[in-house]
Amino acid sequence: MDNPYQLIIVGGGPAGLSAGLHAARSRLHTLLIERVIPGGQMMNAEVVENYPGFPQGISGAELGSLMEQQARKYGLEITMADVEGVELGGEEKIVNTSEGQYRAKALIIAGGSEHSKLGVPGEEELRGRGVSYCATCDGALFNGQVVSVVGGGNVALNDALFLTRFASKVIVIHRRDQLRAAKILQERAFAKPELEFLWDTVVESIEGDSQVRELRLRNVKTKEESRLEVSGVFVAVGLRPNTGYLGGLLALSPEDFILVNDQMETGVPGVFAAGDIRAGSARQITSAVGDGATAAISAERFLAST
Amino acid sequence: MDNPYQLIIVGGGPAGLSAGLHAARSRLHTLLIERVIPGGQMMNAEVVENYPGFPQGISGAELGSLMEQQARKYGLEITMADVEGVELGGEEKIVNTSEGQYRAKALIIAGGSEHSKLGVPGEEELRGRGVSYCATCDGALFNGQVVSVVGGGNVALNDALFLTRFASKVIVIHRRDQLRAAKILQERAFAKPELEFLWDTVVESIEGDSQVRELRLRNVKTKEESRLEVSGVFVAVGLRPNTGYLGGLLALSPEDFILVNDQMETGVPGVFAAGDIRAGSARQITSAVGDGATAAISAERFLAST
Repeated sequence: MDNPYQLIIVGGGPAGLSAGLHAARSRLHTLLIERVIPGGQMMNAEVVENYPGFPQGISGAELGSLMEQQARKYGLEITMADVEGVELGGEEKIVNTSEGQYRAKALIIAGGSEHSKLGVPGEEELRGRGVSYCATCDGALFNGQVVSVVGGGNVALNDALFLTRFASKVIVIHRRDQLRAAKILQERAFAKPELEFLWDTVVESIEGDSQVRELRLRNVKTKEESRLEVSGVFVAVGLRPNTGYLGGLLALSPEDFILVNDQMETGVPGVFAAGDIRAGSARQITSAVGDGATAAISAERFLAST
Repeated sequence: MDNPYQLIIVGGGPAGLSAGLHAARSRLHTLLIERVIPGGQMMNAEVVENYPGFPQGISGAELGSLMEQQARKYGLEITMADVEGVELGGEEKIVNTSEGQYRAKALIIAGGSEHSKLGVPGEEELRGRGVSYCATCDGALFNGQVVSVVGGGNVALNDALFLTRFASKVIVIHRRDQLRAAKILQERAFAKPELEFLWDTVVESIEGDSQVRELRLRNVKTKEESRLEVSGVFVAVGLRPNTGYLGGLLALSPEDFILVNDQMETGVPGVFAAGDIRAGSARQITSAVGDGATAAISAERFLAST
């Protein structure tokens, strides 16, 4: 395959689409490679209330579609493919995908990260309708309601503490009888009267029609089964960046996020990262679009200087 | 004055409004202090084409108004005042303004930066209608047209080179007979046939009705006056962050921008910076809203831990 592109962007979430918009509008011949559908994790949000510019809120799917239209308007090319590996050693960066090989002088990696799933019935079906992986994003939607958090680490306890600002009751469901979270977080959590714990408990299924209604639970010690009425369940059992194929090529954090400086530059000249896949990201749509713009401007400067 | 606020945000541009939206939506009792009108520099943009979510473009004033509405909807308080100084030494941060003193445990500084002006007739009147201070933002609006860049530093030459992608001709107007810009940029600029230089020349006025039509110029050596027909003039004669009152309190870059880490933390616990006022900013609306969200989340964590 020839090398028709100046820039390749891997990932079509808000970071990738923002990078694509900025790059295409700067007349860089740019290809964006997305696995499924442009929009990324955002597509799962029933309503996005904290992306500035939409006071009434907007569905994640609609916002993703608007971002895609806008980037295409300036000439961004988008193709669907699974990225299987990259080669970063030469002057041309090579992206190997399920649909063939693509080449460009600059590369922005914006492949996002994935929340680990519970893997139980109802989780996928009710995602965005009571099942959430981001308390900061969705907590305000559960004002005065009863919600649960699944997990026992720092993220789970931070989420639970955060949710007490909105929910009338927050129930933390943890499969062990003690928490992995930092002691200071545990102390704060135990001091909150509206925060309860269900120990040694796993979620068997999430029930509901248009919205989460209840959880079916099982105690792993006593094997006892029970039900819990909740309006929302926040799954906080881990986050994995989509950096599996980058091992050894780019410097990663201990949790496998890509290390960048404030210009979104990795250690490899011409290779940039943006959005949830980079270390230190605030994991918001806003921070992702900001990263994308910054990475595109850095890529533009890199290309102008070579 | 009592201390009714958990968080004070200085500056009502996109960084401050995004921080205010995120903080208020996280139930932080938050005051935003703005000097003139919420929206910041964005208010001067006739059309914003590169803020993701608005494929048809949107005026800066409209986008600013939407962002303000959205932040107010979640309870952000906004007041108009000139910030005259801050006191960061105690547990409470103190903000002294023309309208009195405000106090909060956390502070986000998002006061932006200002482009140095030419200070000539027509500049203010035609701002956003041919007069621009940001080539990256507005360059694409001048497709096939003749534009000028005023200045002789790195920013001016980067702008001029960038504008050759859109404009049919780019004329750099510089008051001296040589450039301050880096040699490599000069070489690249001199090699571009569509890029011309007018040396020893200053702009006396910018003429036009609804849109920039021509510049009146004067040669500072020969005193000769002339006219130049252009559709746009990009002013690149300097950028000053609004950090005058912070000297000695926060670590600043050599150019007086606030130094932060990737969580938007300054060296002073509880004090954060966001947007164009911080060192390393990409100076886009997108990067500003991203910074604002990140700073708000950091402030929220700081407040939860104290």
